[in-house]
Amino acid sequence: MGNTFGTLFRLTSFGESHGAGIGAVVDGCPAGLELSEADIQPQLARRRPGQSALTTARSEADAVRILSGVDSGRTLGSPIALLVENADARPSEYMDMQSAPRPSHADYTYKVKYGVVASSGGGRASARETVARVAGGAVAEKLLRVRYGVDITAWVSAVEDVQAPDLTEAGVTRRMVDETPVRCPHADSAERMIQAIERARVEGDSVGGVITCVCRNVPAGWGEPVFDKLTALLAHGMMSLPAARGVDFGSGFAAAKMRGSAHNDLFVSKAGRLGTATNRSGGIQGGISNGEPIVFRVAFKPVATIRKAQKSADYDGQTVVIERSVGRHDPCVVPRAVPVVEAMAALVLADAALMAEAYGSGG
Amino acid sequence: MGNTFGTLFRLTSFGESHGAGIGAVVDGCPAGLELSEADIQPQLARRRPGQSALTTARSEADAVRILSGVDSGRTLGSPIALLVENADARPSEYMDMQSAPRPSHADYTYKVKYGVVASSGGGRASARETVARVAGGAVAEKLLRVRYGVDITAWVSAVEDVQAPDLTEAGVTRRMVDETPVRCPHADSAERMIQAIERARVEGDSVGGVITCVCRNVPAGWGEPVFDKLTALLAHGMMSLPAARGVDFGSGFAAAKMRGSAHNDLFVSKAGRLGTATNRSGGIQGGISNGEPIVFRVAFKPVATIRKAQKSADYDGQTVVIERSVGRHDPCVVPRAVPVVEAMAALVLADAALMAEAYGSGG
Amino acid sequence: MGNTFGTLFRLTSFGESHGAGIGAVVDGCPAGLELSEADIQPQLARRRPGQSALTTARSEADAVRILSGVDSGRTLGSPIALLVENADARPSEYMDMQSAPRPSHADYTYKVKYGVVASSGGGRASARETVARVAGGAVAEKLLRVRYGVDITAWVSAVEDVQAPDLTEAGVTRRMVDETPVRCPHADSAERMIQAIERARVEGDSVGGVITCVCRNVPAGWGEPVFDKLTALLAHGMMSLPAARGVDFGSGFAAAKMRGSAHNDLFVSKAGRLGTATNRSGGIQGGISNGEPIVFRVAFKPVATIRKAQKSADYDGQTVVIERSVGRHDPCVVPRAVPVVEAMAALVLADAALMAEAYGSGG
Amino acid sequence: MGNTFGTLFRLTSFGESHGAGIGAVVDGCPAGLELSEADIQPQLARRRPGQSALTTARSEADAVRILSGVDSGRTLGSPIALLVENADARPSEYMDMQSAPRPSHADYTYKVKYGVVASSGGGRASARETVARVAGGAVAEKLLRVRYGVDITAWVSAVEDVQAPDLTEAGVTRRMVDETPVRCPHADSAERMIQAIERARVEGDSVGGVITCVCRNVPAGWGEPVFDKLTALLAHGMMSLPAARGVDFGSGFAAAKMRGSAHNDLFVSKAGRLGTATNRSGGIQGGISNGEPIVFRVAFKPVATIRKAQKSADYDGQTVVIERSVGRHDPCVVPRAVPVVEAMAALVLADAALMAEAYGSGG
Repeated sequence: MGNTFGTLFRLTSFGESHGAGIGAVVDGCPAGLELSEADIQPQLARRRPGQSALTTARSEADAVRILSGVDSGRTLGSPIALLVENADARPSEYMDMQSAPRPSHADYTYKVKYGVVASSGGGRASARETVARVAGGAVAEKLLRVRYGVDITAWVSAVEDVQAPDLTEAGVTRRMVDETPVRCPHADSAERMIQAIERARVEGDSVGGVITCVCRNVPAGWGEPVFDKLTALLAHGMMSLPAARGVDFGSGFAAAKMRGSAHNDLFVSKAGRLGTATNRSGGIQGGISNGEPIVFRVAFKPVATIRKAQKSADYDGQTVVIERSVGRHDPCVVPRAVPVVEAMAALVLADAALMAEAYGSGG
Repeated sequence: MGNTFGTLFRLTSFGESHGAGIGAVVDGCPAGLELSEADIQPQLARRRPGQSALTTARSEADAVRILSGVDSGRTLGSPIALLVENADARPSEYMDMQSAPRPSHADYTYKVKYGVVASSGGGRASARETVARVAGGAVAEKLLRVRYGVDITAWVSAVEDVQAPDLTEAGVTRRMVDETPVRCPHADSAERMIQAIERARVEGDSVGGVITCVCRNVPAGWGEPVFDKLTALLAHGMMSLPAARGVDFGSGFAAAKMRGSAHNDLFVSKAGRLGTATNRSGGIQGGISNGEPIVFRVAFKPVATIRKAQKSADYDGQTVVIERSVGRHDPCVVPRAVPVVEAMAALVLADAALMAEAYGSGG
Repeated sequence: MGNTFGTLFRLTSFGESHGAGIGAVVDGCPAGLELSEADIQPQLARRRPGQSALTTARSEADAVRILSGVDSGRTLGSPIALLVENADARPSEYMDMQSAPRPSHADYTYKVKYGVVASSGGGRASARETVARVAGGAVAEKLLRVRYGVDITAWVSAVEDVQAPDLTEAGVTRRMVDETPVRCPHADSAERMIQAIERARVEGDSVGGVITCVCRNVPAGWGEPVFDKLTALLAHGMMSLPAARGVDFGSGFAAAKMRGSAHNDLFVSKAGRLGTATNRSGGIQGGISNGEPIVFRVAFKPVATIRKAQKSADYDGQTVVIERSVGRHDPCVVPRAVPVVEAMAALVLADAALMAEAYGSGG
Repeated sequence: MGNTFGTLFRLTSFGESHGAGIGAVVDGCPAGLELSEADIQPQLARRRPGQSALTTARSEADAVRILSGVDSGRTLGSPIALLVENADARPSEYMDMQSAPRPSHADYTYKVKYGVVASSGGGRASARETVARVAGGAVAEKLLRVRYGVDITAWVSAVEDVQAPDLTEAGVTRRMVDETPVRCPHADSAERMIQAIERARVEGDSVGGVITCVCRNVPAGWGEPVFDKLTALLAHGMMSLPAARGVDFGSGFAAAKMRGSAHNDLFVSKAGRLGTATNRSGGIQGGISNGEPIVFRVAFKPVATIRKAQKSADYDGQTVVIERSVGRHDPCVVPRAVPVVEAMAALVLADAALMAEAYGSGG
């Protein structure tokens, strides 16, 4: 269960990492939106492994095929099914893992929950499942851009101990983000991040990092006030990502150290609307967008799969040493998670947009 | 919309801060559970303002009444409606705020969304809405304790710049938490937190803080693997709380700075089950509980309502000075948010427990 | 579970027939709608027992109180909680039923499902639960009438073997319906229905009947095309009513006996829109409203509670004779079910209206 | 919207009648169930057109492919994606219909709702969408049969004016049902039904009919008591089928003509459980299964597509004569709807089974 996300704009995800393919069904996209594979493929390409020396060598083409819901280049209002076939499945590589659960992986919890050990690569726990999110998110993003002019841009703001300066008000674009393979638009930080990742790779280790996301031009009035605050829905989406360990909004965890007089965003008149002089609220007040950019960060742990030997226990509780000499391995997934964060943000906002239409707001 | 939380164990919240009362309807609680008002009242008392010099003087009795779903001291399997009448509503105090939106409050976003300015105290955006969560959460907690032995304990781990040491493995109990009015079980930190809050009060200001929550005895196998990971559902619940700005799990944001070799939780044989030597995963791997304690933190911003003068703009964009001389005011809501965090955790876990029953897991 | 109905316009029902009261929480009603108890009370009065010699003597005032969601006579956009306290509970009357399940009642199935025998009057299986539907439905109806001019009128079209002529195109109004206590607007049929009910009462028996409902001025374009067809949602709502045994739309069961050439509704130009010359589709084609009146019927079985002696078995399988000499008893609930059918229709249509707004249709 | 059915056992349907294919995603099927295409194909074969002289000549192979959720012949607990590619799409045949909406089809309502005229064959309104239901329903049926021994059998009980005798207690099997192409297990009635269909075909006309369905071995205790009664969920499922016009349960519409003393099902001791001497309740009391067979009927209108000339109006309101000389045409879809009714029943019951597990009932 739990493979559907959203209320009015809904994504259902399916597919195992080493089965026939990964798919998504988008239900609730309004009719008449121009849509083709070309709207989806670029974000899939950004998520794909093997883009640079920084990432795993698994070389999937990840070509998406629209199976339904689009006719003559426009959405029909019916479910949009998207399929990305798995081209490069090598389940045998993973076979040796089955007697012992991989540390900090989902092997053990899946075994308890389902009574089966996935035959390969983590099944649904694999990062490959995010293909469905990126594909569905691209549809959401198209809707948001065409209808409301919403722009969603994420980037890597920290890797291991390298922290980029705050760029949330710097007008970062995806082109700027993609200028380095580590997807940090601050050149000096990017350089040091790349070095940190390279060091980890050489040592058979992995590193974590942080992604910052900014959503611009979201109209004031989106989001619901109690359980379905925009902060809550975005947090739900982000914390459903593999390896995500934390999320915060606007001033975030730093807000806990502040005084109210320093934290409050004072209102000022902006062109044609009421705005705020600062944006410590991260564009969301009382769970509802206020017209300022929505800003949040997601922290990712270092990936659990490393080459270094680890002393752990097998399913019978016997001590074993786990050491991987084969198989693909990505020392830092954070750069590839950038389009995934953007996709989940788009899914949440498209849902909130339709919800606002239902109740006649979004002013 | 968005006033219902959960799939199988569902809470519906209603009521304005200054209307007839605040209520909750719990649907999906199994039949046969012993339940009375006495199970609910203690957590409401912990949430209530006016408990100490640290909190606002508003003195609501907050007596809960079970309207349905319980007969002869046991649940019937039907919806459990809970009502807490508002005893101390003074809407007139808030009347002067209506020409200008209060900074970092929900006044402006509610106006945009609903087209109305709430007549008093923020309506549903008021922290008083959390009465419904605490009442419903107490039912969830009873179910979790009786059926599974789950224990949920939260405390204040930081206020402004005062950070308590890590107590997540210290066996903290609610009795220990309640020994100081600031609800920090580390005496020295508690003392400094109280001083920070007092300083803020004297200066007409407010301070933020962090709550840490530990859920013990959660069986391995709860949670769904993709969009409804336990991390995702808990993040949804926590980020739906008023003033919440961030949430993280286990190693949390610190994980982003770590190497995989240092972060991975290695398996060890524990009494009768497979456990982990460390708990950087915070009890959740791949979105599913692994039998270790679930650990997370929630960051709260300083409350927006302060006495200090603030230069803002009214609804027409004209500059105004907002200065409050009357009305109740809480310089730090974090201690009172402790039972609210526990309640939301209980609601998420009770839902996950029933979901695990449905699919035959929870081993 | 299952105490919430609807997706965007949602009703949550609570309360036992002999507890503190029956309540409803309406979530998703847009802000700004004029609403007071006076909008709800008339339909509750029509549902109330004891209106005439035809119905049970239980004399509840059924006064509704709006607990939340309305301020200064207008909805706030927040949940509207409605409470009708139980004034006339006499649980002791039902005590003698507890050793044997009442035939064709929910006693036995509730016992299997919940492990408890409700202490009185059927608990949630009691027809008194429909108070929540009527109260919530009145809010839905107000929204539909004010925003879209939708008119919903139901009446009794059959009782036992008395069948009234087809009045679906006769412009029946509620005033016409209420002219007889049996709520059949055809005077001659009404007279014979009353006689049938009186005969049943004298003999300690009960009779079934059929309600016909017509919804006028529903715009074309409401309803979803696959699982949530308007027919499907209305059928869901109607078959959730106590004692409902069947529902059909437009030509209904009679359609099964027809040829396509005789059944098809041919299009004709009507004032400003495309209409159909006949309405065998009952206003719904492919699950979506076509602008013609929505027409359906609901069949109700005779109520299970009768005074006549019945030879049945107790919970231990022993033969017993069940004979009621005390307790309230209604020989035909169908007249009182008229406002309940209208309420469920209103709930379905209000939900469909908001759904149509979300997707930009409803043209 | 509305392309997902169910709460815990969920079917998401996608695909247009003349696009790449029709697909289904089943979420919530427990892990460990033996499953292969061979469990699904037989029901698809029964639904397929071109099985006999009675049905349309469109000759799709309708081979299903399991894309995910099954490994080594067993379900993984992850979503089961099923795809049936469209082999025989001839959109050009339908092109001539686009200036005028076909009478009693969804053309007009789709145009109003979506602003587009489906390029071919009705899109999602096509009966071909039911492929997804049959495929997903076969998974539900496998679960019900293996876990609980539930048997679901439907048959054609009426065509036009031919009414078969009541066979609900005759132990009808699918083999018996399939002995005639019209799927009526009463030989004499079947013969007359076939003649009725042939007469309609010769005259370029169509006929309606009724399907009766019996679900045996459903344990007592399934279903929820208020809005999600088994009757309500089954009615929702059945009335979501193309051309369905009515549904009734047990004694059904005939109950409306009965007295309570004649209608009540008296309890009797049956082998090891409490049963009822008669089954006018159709196996459901108060919305919950009572252990007796669940019995219901679904009425289908004659298909709207006929060859006979019809005088209708085009989208501009101008009178036109609609006459079909080409294109495939099925004078009576009711025999092919038999496996579709079984599939929807299975989906509802599998969902109810998991719901009962969640709450610990199903005794």
